[in-house]
Amino acid sequence: MTRPVVGFIGLGIMGRPMALNIRNAGYELHVYARRAESMQPLADAGAIPSDSPAAVAQAADVVFIMVSDTPDVESVLFGELGVASAAKAGQIVVDMSTISPVNTRDMAARLAALDIDMLDAPVSGGEVGAIAGTLSIMVGGNAAVFARVQPLFGVMGGNIVHIGDHGCGQVAKACNQITVAGAIAAVAEAMLFARKNGTDPYKVREALLGGFAGSKILEVHGKRMLDHNFQPGFKTALHQKDMDIVLDTARQIGLALPTSAMVAQFLNALVGSGDGELDSSAIVKVIEKMSQ
Amino acid sequence: MTRPVVGFIGLGIMGRPMALNIRNAGYELHVYARRAESMQPLADAGAIPSDSPAAVAQAADVVFIMVSDTPDVESVLFGELGVASAAKAGQIVVDMSTISPVNTRDMAARLAALDIDMLDAPVSGGEVGAIAGTLSIMVGGNAAVFARVQPLFGVMGGNIVHIGDHGCGQVAKACNQITVAGAIAAVAEAMLFARKNGTDPYKVREALLGGFAGSKILEVHGKRMLDHNFQPGFKTALHQKDMDIVLDTARQIGLALPTSAMVAQFLNALVGSGDGELDSSAIVKVIEKMSQ
Repeated sequence: MTRPVVGFIGLGIMGRPMALNIRNAGYELHVYARRAESMQPLADAGAIPSDSPAAVAQAADVVFIMVSDTPDVESVLFGELGVASAAKAGQIVVDMSTISPVNTRDMAARLAALDIDMLDAPVSGGEVGAIAGTLSIMVGGNAAVFARVQPLFGVMGGNIVHIGDHGCGQVAKACNQITVAGAIAAVAEAMLFARKNGTDPYKVREALLGGFAGSKILEVHGKRMLDHNFQPGFKTALHQKDMDIVLDTARQIGLALPTSAMVAQFLNALVGSGDGELDSSAIVKVIEKMSQ
Repeated sequence: MTRPVVGFIGLGIMGRPMALNIRNAGYELHVYARRAESMQPLADAGAIPSDSPAAVAQAADVVFIMVSDTPDVESVLFGELGVASAAKAGQIVVDMSTISPVNTRDMAARLAALDIDMLDAPVSGGEVGAIAGTLSIMVGGNAAVFARVQPLFGVMGGNIVHIGDHGCGQVAKACNQITVAGAIAAVAEAMLFARKNGTDPYKVREALLGGFAGSKILEVHGKRMLDHNFQPGFKTALHQKDMDIVLDTARQIGLALPTSAMVAQFLNALVGSGDGELDSSAIVKVIEKMSQ
């Protein structure tokens, strides 16, 4: 596959800059988004707008999908005028959305029956990473297929890891969200503990950064908490959705995750308070409010 | 104070190498430990063994204390033949134990009434840092007193921060333990989630280290969890004691810390299972056991 024709479905905050990076790397690019106006910036850059996922699939060798949640991916693939309806044997579908690992395995099996290879390749690094082309990409699926898509991943991301078979990319992304959510809650409680004890939390954060408590979350999200600057970053509503995936998957495989379950409640509370659009480091607001 | 005479009370796993570093820097050093045999290695290095905290206080300008818990510090200071009973105006007491910030403020006030300056200066970095003289030291108390003790701190530690007034060092240390405990629980749940989903947790850890989930805990303690190597490190029983301080202080000031409270339960469970001597990253064992 020296010069594949590329398709990209889903042109939101993440999908748009990712697709633009592919187009700017010189690939023929066919795009689809539910709202026609979302396709305009891509069309301006020379991409070809399509009127359905099926039309994208008809034109492209590799089809990327970047939508919100599991049902969205299912509808793009298997809905009316979905990708599967225009299936060509040997085609590759790469789902970069963050969705359920269990459903991912099911979808990969359904596509395999049509002779279509699927990769799950969720990302982290946010809008900033999407624009800069420095996303972390965690990939599940066949290693040979991964190798063929690698040059395209390289246009969108920096730290690209093939984790394992179908679903393993989604599992790694879920682990990322578990770790980040728990770390945010712990840093939030530490910063509140310092302040309520009359101790300068900025100095505490500084002192802690060099030791075992040191983390990217203490550095970046700890600062956001102390500055009360909850501009995303990563929106609470999306972190809530990702923790739904974590806890739903854990329930299906019979695994108790008490810390994750508790932190998910903080996200629920934030969304319930109308703060779903804030960065998820706003968890500190929920914990603070409890004692006010 | 160009060449103070130094005292050191408490010569356990941490205190012994810290006192040795002071002696090896050429200071006249008077030591006391409850068990006489603990003083032998120091005596071999030229330190002078004493038979009570009072005897150390009589000889020294600056008295360091490194014992287990709040009641131990209270007894060293105010018990029979305690430091306070041999009080000399202008003397400095530096408590490097990890104890309650509230009680620390009380003790500092009682010593101030005797014209003795107190610093609270708990450390992190463990036995390895104590031996190497690279401990992080978080200091509370008067800034001028801190400046006078700084050369001695420099012999024991690397990252030395004056956080604020009396108790602020203990508050910073408590924040450290909150952050580390929460991060361990989150990393534990992520590693279990990966493994139970048939995904290589080593690869997940590797993929996550470069992004927002990256932390010293994921790097060091995550590896310990995957290798099932729970050699301390930092003992569960001590982390439990530190979380008792956190939650007791939080109760006194009326602050809810739900994540810390839950993680403290994991530490209780570990100690209850006879695993109190393991590194506290063994929290992963408790969470794993719940679903077995």
